[in-house]
Amino acid sequence: MKAAIIGTTGYGGAELMRVLANHPEFSIHSVHTTRDEVPVWNEYPHLYSIVENKLEKVDSEAIAANCDVVFFATPSGVSSKLISEFADKQIKIVDLSGDMRLRNLDDYQTWYKKQPAPKEVVNKFVYGLSEWNKENIATADWLSNPGCYPTATLLGLAPVIKEDIVKPDSIIIDAKSGISGAGRTPSRGTMLAEMNENLKIYKVNEHQHIPEIEQQLTDWNASIGPVTFSTHLLPVNRGIMATIYASLQKESTIEQVHTLFMDAYKDKPFVRVRPIGNFPSIKEVSGSNYCDIGLQLDERTGRLTIIATIDNLMKGAAGQAVQNANIMFGIDECTGLNFVPMYP
Amino acid sequence: MKAAIIGTTGYGGAELMRVLANHPEFSIHSVHTTRDEVPVWNEYPHLYSIVENKLEKVDSEAIAANCDVVFFATPSGVSSKLISEFADKQIKIVDLSGDMRLRNLDDYQTWYKKQPAPKEVVNKFVYGLSEWNKENIATADWLSNPGCYPTATLLGLAPVIKEDIVKPDSIIIDAKSGISGAGRTPSRGTMLAEMNENLKIYKVNEHQHIPEIEQQLTDWNASIGPVTFSTHLLPVNRGIMATIYASLQKESTIEQVHTLFMDAYKDKPFVRVRPIGNFPSIKEVSGSNYCDIGLQLDERTGRLTIIATIDNLMKGAAGQAVQNANIMFGIDECTGLNFVPMYP
Amino acid sequence: MKAAIIGTTGYGGAELMRVLANHPEFSIHSVHTTRDEVPVWNEYPHLYSIVENKLEKVDSEAIAANCDVVFFATPSGVSSKLISEFADKQIKIVDLSGDMRLRNLDDYQTWYKKQPAPKEVVNKFVYGLSEWNKENIATADWLSNPGCYPTATLLGLAPVIKEDIVKPDSIIIDAKSGISGAGRTPSRGTMLAEMNENLKIYKVNEHQHIPEIEQQLTDWNASIGPVTFSTHLLPVNRGIMATIYASLQKESTIEQVHTLFMDAYKDKPFVRVRPIGNFPSIKEVSGSNYCDIGLQLDERTGRLTIIATIDNLMKGAAGQAVQNANIMFGIDECTGLNFVPMYP
Amino acid sequence: MKAAIIGTTGYGGAELMRVLANHPEFSIHSVHTTRDEVPVWNEYPHLYSIVENKLEKVDSEAIAANCDVVFFATPSGVSSKLISEFADKQIKIVDLSGDMRLRNLDDYQTWYKKQPAPKEVVNKFVYGLSEWNKENIATADWLSNPGCYPTATLLGLAPVIKEDIVKPDSIIIDAKSGISGAGRTPSRGTMLAEMNENLKIYKVNEHQHIPEIEQQLTDWNASIGPVTFSTHLLPVNRGIMATIYASLQKESTIEQVHTLFMDAYKDKPFVRVRPIGNFPSIKEVSGSNYCDIGLQLDERTGRLTIIATIDNLMKGAAGQAVQNANIMFGIDECTGLNFVPMYP
Repeated sequence: MKAAIIGTTGYGGAELMRVLANHPEFSIHSVHTTRDEVPVWNEYPHLYSIVENKLEKVDSEAIAANCDVVFFATPSGVSSKLISEFADKQIKIVDLSGDMRLRNLDDYQTWYKKQPAPKEVVNKFVYGLSEWNKENIATADWLSNPGCYPTATLLGLAPVIKEDIVKPDSIIIDAKSGISGAGRTPSRGTMLAEMNENLKIYKVNEHQHIPEIEQQLTDWNASIGPVTFSTHLLPVNRGIMATIYASLQKESTIEQVHTLFMDAYKDKPFVRVRPIGNFPSIKEVSGSNYCDIGLQLDERTGRLTIIATIDNLMKGAAGQAVQNANIMFGIDECTGLNFVPMYP
Repeated sequence: MKAAIIGTTGYGGAELMRVLANHPEFSIHSVHTTRDEVPVWNEYPHLYSIVENKLEKVDSEAIAANCDVVFFATPSGVSSKLISEFADKQIKIVDLSGDMRLRNLDDYQTWYKKQPAPKEVVNKFVYGLSEWNKENIATADWLSNPGCYPTATLLGLAPVIKEDIVKPDSIIIDAKSGISGAGRTPSRGTMLAEMNENLKIYKVNEHQHIPEIEQQLTDWNASIGPVTFSTHLLPVNRGIMATIYASLQKESTIEQVHTLFMDAYKDKPFVRVRPIGNFPSIKEVSGSNYCDIGLQLDERTGRLTIIATIDNLMKGAAGQAVQNANIMFGIDECTGLNFVPMYP
Repeated sequence: MKAAIIGTTGYGGAELMRVLANHPEFSIHSVHTTRDEVPVWNEYPHLYSIVENKLEKVDSEAIAANCDVVFFATPSGVSSKLISEFADKQIKIVDLSGDMRLRNLDDYQTWYKKQPAPKEVVNKFVYGLSEWNKENIATADWLSNPGCYPTATLLGLAPVIKEDIVKPDSIIIDAKSGISGAGRTPSRGTMLAEMNENLKIYKVNEHQHIPEIEQQLTDWNASIGPVTFSTHLLPVNRGIMATIYASLQKESTIEQVHTLFMDAYKDKPFVRVRPIGNFPSIKEVSGSNYCDIGLQLDERTGRLTIIATIDNLMKGAAGQAVQNANIMFGIDECTGLNFVPMYP
Repeated sequence: MKAAIIGTTGYGGAELMRVLANHPEFSIHSVHTTRDEVPVWNEYPHLYSIVENKLEKVDSEAIAANCDVVFFATPSGVSSKLISEFADKQIKIVDLSGDMRLRNLDDYQTWYKKQPAPKEVVNKFVYGLSEWNKENIATADWLSNPGCYPTATLLGLAPVIKEDIVKPDSIIIDAKSGISGAGRTPSRGTMLAEMNENLKIYKVNEHQHIPEIEQQLTDWNASIGPVTFSTHLLPVNRGIMATIYASLQKESTIEQVHTLFMDAYKDKPFVRVRPIGNFPSIKEVSGSNYCDIGLQLDERTGRLTIIATIDNLMKGAAGQAVQNANIMFGIDECTGLNFVPMYP
């Protein structure tokens, strides 16, 4: 199958090229951006001699004529405008941006501070949390790929929310992310001299991934109240850790909770639930499509601590996008995603 | 005044030398460790031509005869054994280790997994959270310097705990620390190749600073229940950020909470309460004795987020130790501590 | 084919597992170390659920009976002792250590300060600089894999040394390496707090890779004199850059020199000669088996600057080892090595 | 004395504030930039409550009326335009930019690719390599502060060039710098995601500091030919290491060379010549005004290796600027510069 990639100004587009360069079923047919005629390796020298394409302008006719799938690796606000061009064409769409994730358009406007796409367009998109929505993804033509923070958070919370074992108003997510999530457009805040040896908290209670998390949690369990969600910027390239706190509804043992997670993820190859007492670090998933989960229960406070780690560019973006494309095209979801974490 | 420093295997001892090298009232008389006759600069080449001392074995007689104050910058378990040698001598003691902080000796045994010092020795130590215990510090001969995590946490929580405005069982502290807090003894976990590009959670619900935090919180407000406290290791040298969550007892505005903090810290030169909407990063206090505090209130959940940042080797160790020594000797607490944060 | 790996205390062993885990022809049969019965993932949690082996003691009989090839990823001094056990057995050997690289045993003793292996053993090893010794590698049973610094240096120098276009006594190599090359045994010098925000020069004129470099250079061109070779430790996990200076024998243009390199490497898929004016950085080869080369000529001084970058754990260790194993077993040298550099 | 600082878009201006904030003789009177009325701490939150000034537009009349000295911490091309406004006024000038360093105006145009200042203006500036031009600095009104690379390089080379003990055409300088030298204007190349875990070579043979180095070397020793000078960007905030190679004119011992350096720098408090066999790292001078020098001699090649390290923002910019201002105003050159390196 042939794939087109739109957008290379963030790192998600580059990561898609890293994944698809060796994919046995998908090949990179074309790479699109507003800049034209520049070889891809000029923008990304690490792809020298690997991706031979030149960047091209977006031409929806040509893309749809030549490709089976198009990946939008664009900033928010772009796919909501471009998608209509593809509406009547024979091509599957995977949108990595946040534009099509929120069913409530007012929420989009409130949190993204941008004009939402039309209701009927948004409604056609299936939310691609691969592990928990596989059946719908399998029949989807248009797919909205989850955000990096929501992926880690939701995979960490799914078993306890679905089984209703935590107090609905007790959820606090303290999330930390590597800086590649901030994209490739230069800004003072992402300069090495500013972020190196640093840790910053940002968008306190205001991150646009909050409604995405709450939408899925309440889909699973209508009783769940608003969550507290904090985001910190780490001086590393890749990786997200979500440290999640929630109070148990009733007394349980760590063994019971651990069994719940083991059962929930036993047939889901990209989620690795660690043994009791073992906790994942972000480097242990770096470059791979894994989400690693660790668990701890504090008897003194009755609080559960869930630690979920992913590579924000892989399971949090390009990796999950390809996993979803695999499912959409009826091939094994692991195809082309056998990346061993790169350590050190 | 003349100072002796015991212990250089952690970075606290080296930081004490950095601070005292230019202190107008204290001078470094001697530096002690188990190694003998080695010039200090062999261990710490950055002190070449600055600290001319050779390392000496600990000789309590000589130290007491020559010095006005001795700083213990030793791992836990050392000062509890050594302190008795100084019991009958004319010398003030500042202990940077955790040995003398917990009044409940069972707690020490439980959390430190070591034999505590005798009750009557521990009782003679005054807890040196400079901003909130200044009167007792002023008359102390023996001082127990707070831990790095407790310093950030307690300075962040003091105003709301003392004023009883948060629910007593709602406190969650998600703390992140630079690696210098782990000391200078080589271990796999602190190697650059293991921690670089990494973020690790450790000692989940088991950190020995938990009882220290709870002891002070309940001293301030007996209603406070056990706290949830998580610690993460950052790939940076210095810095602690405590992201603290607590639910308000009753509705307040961010302006009211901010005013509470401004009032609480208005005469405390090393605490900088940031304006509403402005949040401190760890680098903005690096190398200085400041504790910077930011505040946010989430109306959706009724939770307060308090962000407190310090340099773990300064306000979290050597800086606060010298601040306390200043107070103990009746000089201005800021003396010799006018370090501007080093940025970048 | 089945592979055994001996040695996991350095990162070379772990990288071999990362490469072989997905190799279409080789599978990991067993992993050996002095520790026994511990699952591999205990030592390397990133391999959880990927490498299911337990560590085993070295049993040469069993290894030879079960495997087609054994990789030694051991510190210097180990394979020189262990190799004799394999001498009479039907198994190919790839030695990643420095023990079998120097034909002159006195040089080994001088630079490694250890007892060399017997002459007849060393002589049986073929030096595995894949790009320049392919024919001999193809028929080798015992292979000595080049050091990381020599790989970058020799690939950078080969074209000009073979064509005799630089002055034989003018070669200066200023090399910089990520810290994974220093292995996984904890030491003060490799702690994050010591190396982060740092750059260290070490083993000035005394690095054990000097005789390895000179042996190959004089094999290519007997006129080459001793080289100046400096090594610096970078605060990064992976990557080597060799900045090489040499004076031209006679006037040339940068175009002529560039053409020489393009011709030399045109059929060598892992060497990417960059266009004139474009220079490789270490991150642009990270995680891959590429060696990237950049060139500059200074008309003011008549000196050529050659920049060669590799990932020290891949082309400098495990990657080249697998490339050599591919050649030794008669399969395409690129098999299982299609790693796209991980960026960022 | 009162000081004005012009320019805060690079980190040199911020570092001047860090140094002057505690200087016993100079105080910060005003800080100037093209932005107006913004508190300094908005731009540099680490200076919150320390530097209370608001940024002001440049008004040469007011500056000269109120201040004794003005520091230009501006990018190249700015002071060459602004300086004329101060020509007829009673105020000393310290220019940290490269505009006034090259006596040969053609060189300025060639290497900086900008219009030079008028000859008579440039001629009035004294070159402020504090250790070697102290007498001229003492009587200077207008001072041109050396570049960061030239400072490390020239302090490393001075003894051997002045004594004429190295071959005039043999000098190669392989320099490595932290990223703060690149300024604070966002660009792709200085983003954390691009430079972290990276090492880049840049401006090969084309760095504008080359003519500055050669100008001083030939002033000291007319026989010196063009040098080879390479610059690499490190993933650290601060620090320069110049690894300098030169061939000895005649045989010497390392002891003789070391004695030469010890003698040359015995009364120069900011240069620390390390003992034989001991080499400085960049972190060991971080935050201080020291230049540390290490030496090695290779008998195999007859080449001397000189390692010189500085903090590029201190001895390479603000520190040396204040050292020069001290000398210009007749006070001890060390005044206000007793910064102990911050380690770790």
